[in-house]
Amino acid sequence: MDKVRIGIVGTGYIGNVHGRIYARDERAEVAALFDIIPERMAETAKHIGGRICASREELLDNCDAVLVCAPNKTHPEIAAAAVAAGKHVFCEKPFAIGIDEAASLLAVANSSDKVFQVGHSRRFAPLYVKLKELLANDAPHSAHIKMNRGELLQPPWTGDTNVTGGFLYETTIHFLDQLRFQFGEVEELIAYGSRHEYPEIDEFSVIFRFRNGFHCTFASSADAGWMFPFERIEVFCHHRTIVAEEMLKLFDGRGTNADYATHSFHMLDDDTRKGFVAEDAAFISSILDGTPTAVSADDGYKAVELVEAVYGSIRTGERVRF
Amino acid sequence: MDKVRIGIVGTGYIGNVHGRIYARDERAEVAALFDIIPERMAETAKHIGGRICASREELLDNCDAVLVCAPNKTHPEIAAAAVAAGKHVFCEKPFAIGIDEAASLLAVANSSDKVFQVGHSRRFAPLYVKLKELLANDAPHSAHIKMNRGELLQPPWTGDTNVTGGFLYETTIHFLDQLRFQFGEVEELIAYGSRHEYPEIDEFSVIFRFRNGFHCTFASSADAGWMFPFERIEVFCHHRTIVAEEMLKLFDGRGTNADYATHSFHMLDDDTRKGFVAEDAAFISSILDGTPTAVSADDGYKAVELVEAVYGSIRTGERVRF
Amino acid sequence: MDKVRIGIVGTGYIGNVHGRIYARDERAEVAALFDIIPERMAETAKHIGGRICASREELLDNCDAVLVCAPNKTHPEIAAAAVAAGKHVFCEKPFAIGIDEAASLLAVANSSDKVFQVGHSRRFAPLYVKLKELLANDAPHSAHIKMNRGELLQPPWTGDTNVTGGFLYETTIHFLDQLRFQFGEVEELIAYGSRHEYPEIDEFSVIFRFRNGFHCTFASSADAGWMFPFERIEVFCHHRTIVAEEMLKLFDGRGTNADYATHSFHMLDDDTRKGFVAEDAAFISSILDGTPTAVSADDGYKAVELVEAVYGSIRTGERVRF
Amino acid sequence: MDKVRIGIVGTGYIGNVHGRIYARDERAEVAALFDIIPERMAETAKHIGGRICASREELLDNCDAVLVCAPNKTHPEIAAAAVAAGKHVFCEKPFAIGIDEAASLLAVANSSDKVFQVGHSRRFAPLYVKLKELLANDAPHSAHIKMNRGELLQPPWTGDTNVTGGFLYETTIHFLDQLRFQFGEVEELIAYGSRHEYPEIDEFSVIFRFRNGFHCTFASSADAGWMFPFERIEVFCHHRTIVAEEMLKLFDGRGTNADYATHSFHMLDDDTRKGFVAEDAAFISSILDGTPTAVSADDGYKAVELVEAVYGSIRTGERVRF
Repeated sequence: MDKVRIGIVGTGYIGNVHGRIYARDERAEVAALFDIIPERMAETAKHIGGRICASREELLDNCDAVLVCAPNKTHPEIAAAAVAAGKHVFCEKPFAIGIDEAASLLAVANSSDKVFQVGHSRRFAPLYVKLKELLANDAPHSAHIKMNRGELLQPPWTGDTNVTGGFLYETTIHFLDQLRFQFGEVEELIAYGSRHEYPEIDEFSVIFRFRNGFHCTFASSADAGWMFPFERIEVFCHHRTIVAEEMLKLFDGRGTNADYATHSFHMLDDDTRKGFVAEDAAFISSILDGTPTAVSADDGYKAVELVEAVYGSIRTGERVRF
Repeated sequence: MDKVRIGIVGTGYIGNVHGRIYARDERAEVAALFDIIPERMAETAKHIGGRICASREELLDNCDAVLVCAPNKTHPEIAAAAVAAGKHVFCEKPFAIGIDEAASLLAVANSSDKVFQVGHSRRFAPLYVKLKELLANDAPHSAHIKMNRGELLQPPWTGDTNVTGGFLYETTIHFLDQLRFQFGEVEELIAYGSRHEYPEIDEFSVIFRFRNGFHCTFASSADAGWMFPFERIEVFCHHRTIVAEEMLKLFDGRGTNADYATHSFHMLDDDTRKGFVAEDAAFISSILDGTPTAVSADDGYKAVELVEAVYGSIRTGERVRF
Repeated sequence: MDKVRIGIVGTGYIGNVHGRIYARDERAEVAALFDIIPERMAETAKHIGGRICASREELLDNCDAVLVCAPNKTHPEIAAAAVAAGKHVFCEKPFAIGIDEAASLLAVANSSDKVFQVGHSRRFAPLYVKLKELLANDAPHSAHIKMNRGELLQPPWTGDTNVTGGFLYETTIHFLDQLRFQFGEVEELIAYGSRHEYPEIDEFSVIFRFRNGFHCTFASSADAGWMFPFERIEVFCHHRTIVAEEMLKLFDGRGTNADYATHSFHMLDDDTRKGFVAEDAAFISSILDGTPTAVSADDGYKAVELVEAVYGSIRTGERVRF
Repeated sequence: MDKVRIGIVGTGYIGNVHGRIYARDERAEVAALFDIIPERMAETAKHIGGRICASREELLDNCDAVLVCAPNKTHPEIAAAAVAAGKHVFCEKPFAIGIDEAASLLAVANSSDKVFQVGHSRRFAPLYVKLKELLANDAPHSAHIKMNRGELLQPPWTGDTNVTGGFLYETTIHFLDQLRFQFGEVEELIAYGSRHEYPEIDEFSVIFRFRNGFHCTFASSADAGWMFPFERIEVFCHHRTIVAEEMLKLFDGRGTNADYATHSFHMLDDDTRKGFVAEDAAFISSILDGTPTAVSADDGYKAVELVEAVYGSIRTGERVRF
C-alpha cells in the first residue's frame, strides 16, 4: 500500500478535524465520505476532498481504513461493519455505550487482523505526553482531578442521552482514559452524583484507587460555566506538585520552596496541541509500518467500563471493584 | 469591664500573632503570659507586653480571658482549667485530639456562662467571608477542594503525631471546618488514605455529602511541596464556577462565556487577610457586647468529629454517616 | 454581484488563512490563485478550491477582488496592478516598504472607486474591539505597551530585511496601527534602538505623544524568546488600569481596591480570535453593501509613516513630529 | 561595641518597620525614639521598646546609630545633625528633595567616618537580588519597566508635594535606584509627563539609555488603581525574557520555545520579601564588621539626580545627559 485510502463516516465536527489532517498527510488520502446529511458531506468534500458516497457500502468499497465519526450510539454497529469488510478501523470515543455493546465490539475488534484504534486523542496531546514522562520518573502518591465541561446544551445534542449515552460519555470519558494512561489500572472506585439542570446526573464526585496503591479525587460538572481551566490534573509526589491545565500549561514544582518550572504549549496549533495530529499519524504508522496500536479496543472497552462503573456506583451506593 | 485583660498560654508563633493584634486593640490589654519555655515568654513580653507569669495559676489570677495557644494535645486540659477559673476562653484549633477529649471539653464549655470561642480563623478571612456571601445568593451543586500543606516537617514538630494528633489536625482541620461554614452539615463521608514519607497517613482522598444534597471531593497531601496555591476551593453552581485560591484571589465566572470577576485580597496585611484581626475582634465583642460566639465549642467539636471520621473511614474502609 | 469572486496572490501562510475563511463564506467564492511556487498553489487549491492561474493576468481575468498576500516588498506593485485592472483590493500589511512607495500606492488607491482595505487584522480581534469600547467610555491618561515577537528567524525569511523591509514591518506594525486605532493621531515620537543578534536594529524603546495629550511607552524586541504574553497593552485611566494580553485576556481593574474583571477570549477559534474572520467579512460587506472601508489606504500609509519615523528617530537621534 | 544602640527619628509606618526588625536583632537594641507626635512615639515604644525622648538632642545622647524615618523633606537636616553628632546614619529614601539639598547632604555624608546608608530597600528584596544574579550572567539588551503606585492620596499626605517633594520621590524613586542597581549608570534620559487628577504631574513616560548601551522604557502612573502587579521589570536578553513582578514572582523564559522557570517568593514574610530584614542587617554589619556600605550616600544622591532629571526633561522638553 502506497497511501492509506481513508473513508470517513460522519462529517460533523470531529470528522472534519481528522479529514483536514489527513488531507495534508502524504501517507494518506481522503478517499471517501459518507453522512446521512448530504449537504454536510458535500460541504466537507469541498474542503478535504473525497468521493461523496451514496451508501456505507460504497464507502467501504473505496477505502482501506474507516474513521467512525458518527454519533456515539452508532459507533459499534459502524465499526463492526468496517471490521467485517476487512478494513482498518479508527473508532472515535466512546468505544460504545453500555458494557454489553462494548463487550460485543471488543470481541469483533479482537477477531480482526487489521488495525483497530480508539479515539482517545488526549493521550497524544504533547502536554499529557510530557506529564506521563515526568510521572514515569517519579512515584506519584495521589492526585486531584477535575473536568467541568461547561454546559451540556452546547451544542444542543450533547444534552440528549439518546445521542450521547450520558454526560460521562462526552468529554469526561477522555479523562477516565487518562487515568489509566497516567496512573495504571483502576482497582476500585466510589462515586456520588446529583442532578440539577438536566434530565440526567450532571455533577459527579468520585474517588479512584489503583492497583499500585495510588488514589485520586475526581470531579466532573456538566453545568459549571466556561471559566478556564476546565480541565486540571494535580499530582502530588514526594515534595513535588505537578499540575496540568487545559493542555496548555504544565507546572512542575519540586523541593521545599515555592519555585516551579512551566512547560507551555500555547504556541502549538490547535490540532497539534490537542493531540489530533499525532493520533492520526499513529493510526497510519500502525497500518503502514506495523507499529502497535496506540489506543486499543481493550483501552476503549475499559474506558466504557469506568463510565458504567461510576454510574453504577451512584445508582447502588456501593463501591465498584475491578 | 473597661478593657479585656488577655492572658496568653503558649507564646509560640500563634500566641504571638494574637498578642500583637491585642497589643494594638483599644478594647483589650495583653495582661499576662505563660509558657514552659521562659526565654520565649520573655522575648514575647518585649514585643507585646504582659506580665511574665511563673505558673498558670498566676496567669489565671491576672486576666479576664485566656488564649489557649499551647501545643494541640494540651488544649482541652488548659481550656478546661480556664473555664473552671471562670474565664472567657479562646481555644486555638484543634479543639481537642480525639472524640473523647472533644466530648469532655464540649461538656465543660457548655457548662460555662462565659464566652468560649474556637480558633478557626479562616472563617474570618475576608476572602472566605466573601465566598460565603456569594454562595448564599446561589445554589451550589458540588465542589472540588484541596489543601496540600507542603511538608510535614516544617517546623519539625508538625511531623510528630504525639504533638499534633495527626496531620489532619494541623492545617487541614481549618478546611474541614470551612466545609461546614460554607456548605452546611455533613451527612456522610468516605475516605481513602496512604502513607509515603512519614510515619502516618500523609495522602488523603475524601468525598463529603451534605444534608442538603451537596457533595464535594477533597484532597489533602502532606508531602506535595510548596507550589502555590496550596489551598483551593472550586464550587460549581448553575452555569457558574467560583474559585478561591489561598485567601488571595476569588474568581467568579458566570454564564456561558469565559469571562469572570476577580476579587483580590493582596493588599491586605497578613493578619487581616488570614482572618486573625477579625477573629480577635469578634472574641472581644462577644465578651464586651454579648454578640454571639462566632465559632462555638460545638463547631470545634464537629471539626474534630470530621477529622476522626476521615481517619476512621480509611481504617475501616467504610463510609461514615452522621 | 451575487458572490464576490476572490483571487489570491500569494498562497503562503496568510493567503491560506484568508482562503479557508472565504471558502466557508456564502457571500464569497475562492475563484483564482496565483503563486510563483506552483506546488504551493496546487496544495492550497486542494484545500480551498480556486482556479490555478499561470499568470497574474489570468488571475485578474477571473476575479472581482484581489487579496495581496505575497511578500512585503511586492505589495505596492501587485496592489497597484489590481487597482489598475479595476479590482477591489485587500492588501496585506505592510501597505508598503518606505514612505515613497507608500505615498505612490496611496495615490493609486485614492484614485480607485473600488474598495481598498489594508490587512491590519488586530483591529478586528474581539479583544481589541472590546478594549476600544472600554476606552471610548473613559479618558485614558497614559499607557505602557510592548510587543516582543520572539525570534526574527522563525521562519527564516523574517530575518531578511530584503524580504520584510525591517523588523518593525513584521508584527510590530500591527501595534503601531493599534496605537492610532485606540488612542488617535500621533503628534510626536522619540525612539532609541540597538542591534544585538541580527544584521538590523532588533531592540526598540519608543515614546509616543498624541494630539490629545495622551502619551505612552512602547518596547519591541526581536530577540526575546517566546514567553507569553508577547503582546501587552496596559492603559492607565482615572483610578483604573486596563490590561490587554495576547488577544486572550482583557483585565479591567477600577477604583481603589485590587479587584478586576476579566474578559476572556480563549474559547474563540484562532481565526476569529485574531480578527481574521471579521476582517474578511468587513471586506465583503464593503464590496456588496457599500459599508465604509474598515482599514483604509490612509491607515495603511500612516502605519508605514510610523515605522519610518521610529527608524528615522533612531538614526538621527531627534524627535519626529507629525 | 556589643550591640548597636539604635535611635529612631520618626515613628510612623517605616520607623515601626525598622523598629520591629531591630527589636528582634541580637546585634542591635532599640535604644531611643523621637517623634513630634508624642502619642505615636508612646504607642511605638509599647511594641518595640526604646527610651521616649523629649528632644532630638536627647535621642542623639542615647544611641550609636540614627534611623532617619521622618517625612521626606526633613531628611537632610536630621541626617546632617546625626552626622555632626558622630553617629552612624541610616537615612530613609529619598536621600533629599532637590539637587541642592542632595549635594549638601552628600558633602556632609562624605565628611563622616561613620556608616551612612540610604534606605533603598528593594536592593535587598530577595527577588531583586536574584534578578541581578541572573542578569550578571547574561547580557541584557533592553527592558520595559513600570511602577503604578495606585493612588496618590492613600495615605493623604502622599498627594502633598510639600511633604513628599513630588510623586517620583515616593515609591517610584525605588525604581530609579533599581535601574542603576540592575543595569549600571544612566547616560541619558528623555521624559514625557502629564497632569490629570492631582495638582502635580501624575503620569510619566520615560526612556533611559545607559553607558553600556542598554536602554529601557519606564512608565509610572500615580492614578492607575491598585490592580496587581503594580511593579514589573521585563528584561529582554538573547532569546530570553526575564520578568519580575511585585517582589513575588520572577519568570525566566529562555530559548525558542515558550517554557519558563518561576522563582516564587510568596512564602517569605513581608519584611523579608520586601528587603527590610536584609537591609537592616547590612547596616549593622557595616557598623560592627566594617563591611562596605550597601547603599551609599552617592547612591542616594544619584537617585535624586534621576528624579530631578525626569522632572527637568518634562519641563524643558529636552533630553538630559549625565
